Amino acid sequence: MQLIDGKVVSKAVKEEIAAQVRQMISEGKKRPHLAAILVGHDGGSETYVAGKVKDCEDCGFTSTLIRFENDVTEETLLAEVEKLNKNEDVDGFIVQLPLPKQISEQKIIEAIDYRKDVDGFNPVNVGRVSLGLPAFVSATPDGILELIKRYKIETAGKHVVVIGRSNIVGKPVANLLMQKGYPGNATVTVVHSFSKDIKEQCLTADIIICALGKPGFLKADMVKDGVVVIDVGTTRVPSDKTKSGFKLMGDVAFDEVAPKCSYITPVPGGVGLMTRVSLMKNTLLAGSKAIY
Amino acid sequence: MQLIDGKVVSKAVKEEIAAQVRQMISEGKKRPHLAAILVGHDGGSETYVAGKVKDCEDCGFTSTLIRFENDVTEETLLAEVEKLNKNEDVDGFIVQLPLPKQISEQKIIEAIDYRKDVDGFNPVNVGRVSLGLPAFVSATPDGILELIKRYKIETAGKHVVVIGRSNIVGKPVANLLMQKGYPGNATVTVVHSFSKDIKEQCLTADIIICALGKPGFLKADMVKDGVVVIDVGTTRVPSDKTKSGFKLMGDVAFDEVAPKCSYITPVPGGVGLMTRVSLMKNTLLAGSKAIY
Repeated sequence: MQLIDGKVVSKAVKEEIAAQVRQMISEGKKRPHLAAILVGHDGGSETYVAGKVKDCEDCGFTSTLIRFENDVTEETLLAEVEKLNKNEDVDGFIVQLPLPKQISEQKIIEAIDYRKDVDGFNPVNVGRVSLGLPAFVSATPDGILELIKRYKIETAGKHVVVIGRSNIVGKPVANLLMQKGYPGNATVTVVHSFSKDIKEQCLTADIIICALGKPGFLKADMVKDGVVVIDVGTTRVPSDKTKSGFKLMGDVAFDEVAPKCSYITPVPGGVGLMTRVSLMKNTLLAGSKAIY
Repeated sequence: MQLIDGKVVSKAVKEEIAAQVRQMISEGKKRPHLAAILVGHDGGSETYVAGKVKDCEDCGFTSTLIRFENDVTEETLLAEVEKLNKNEDVDGFIVQLPLPKQISEQKIIEAIDYRKDVDGFNPVNVGRVSLGLPAFVSATPDGILELIKRYKIETAGKHVVVIGRSNIVGKPVANLLMQKGYPGNATVTVVHSFSKDIKEQCLTADIIICALGKPGFLKADMVKDGVVVIDVGTTRVPSDKTKSGFKLMGDVAFDEVAPKCSYITPVPGGVGLMTRVSLMKNTLLAGSKAIY
């Protein structure tokens, strides 16, 4: 069993990005610029955005943080999105979710110019991923594929079972792994809350991507020997052993599943860390106009 | 075994559309208007477009056919697309594929305003289908879902195996059947040329959608009793028994598979007929501004 180390890989990717930015600067090119809109003061969102600003520094990007209070109107937010769409110095931007109730998240997402949509949530990017065209891939599926690539895990002709059909993980990662090329060319099955055959499907899987948000869902008796397990779950559960008073739990019963695996991601220290660098990868792609 | 009759269903759908159009007209509303751009004089394309014009007549739509010769430039075609995008009288339009070599099909598809993209090929509509949002669904997957609905075939918790991962059939129909709601909530597996387990997957399938374009590919020993089989194949093979000199062959070895099925579509007379009415459904949706 080999542990897939998100810490090592995400650090390597970040260093590669920083090196590319230094190269761009030395060639007289513009420094990539990521902007983020943050509404309100939700603790989780503050932490995520602070992490993104820090990542930008590490990568050598310019970053801009634009704040609004919780009572901001949809109109004001749409106007800000329009401003960023038109701002030629901003290569890509994100609107940190969730947004307050008075604002339609879907409307905001669709207002973002797809050429600056580094979160990859705009239907244009989602559609292009499904069509196998170059696109901004959203952070979690991109992070999963990066791990698969870095560990040279074979996917062609393999049976991949994706547990969960969310718009941000299950559906896009399934669409990516069935594409032509690598990582891809896999037989892909998507199971979810309505599926009656989750265990049967998992038992035939060469690779399982677990993204349903139920701690310890995937048990040892559900997997075959030599399986690759990618755990996307990050449920916060109370804990008296950590300073914060909680710990992150994955969807996989790690201690019993790990001995049967050829590769497995830990939680924390696996996919979660990769999602942060995927945003940086997209910002570099936006800054170098590599996609649009 | 019950035969799924595309002829009966497509006729019923067309009559329902015609009734809705009469209702719209009686309410003083505008008659839905479909435009089609046809480049060159390819026999297949001429036949398809003539069929679409005829369908428009049957449904009570206005139709406009715009012709270009084979040597048309991409620029001229893009200008025509732009004109149709702006023409308020045109509710939806299609550009008949394939296009001559000097023209990028993808560029043309992406130039069509997604709100008039009744073929459902624009990335915005593809993305919205994947996200589970209202969208123009492309003709073949829409036709398959319509047949499933009309025959009240249960999909929730069922294992659907889609054979083939094309952008116009395999991938969108897989994305649709894994969505919440009906027809959906299915466990969906996509297999293709790289899959080593096609037979094993098919043997566990409650519903098989066969869309790979290999005549007679699906054999009796690959399906379980009671399976639902949707045959999307339409390969032309030479025949001395028809006036045209060819006959259409599906992907399913019908004679041996049919006895094991609860439902099966014939070829011809199944999915093919449905794709024509799906374009009419989308034109009605466009004309009544039901999606955008």
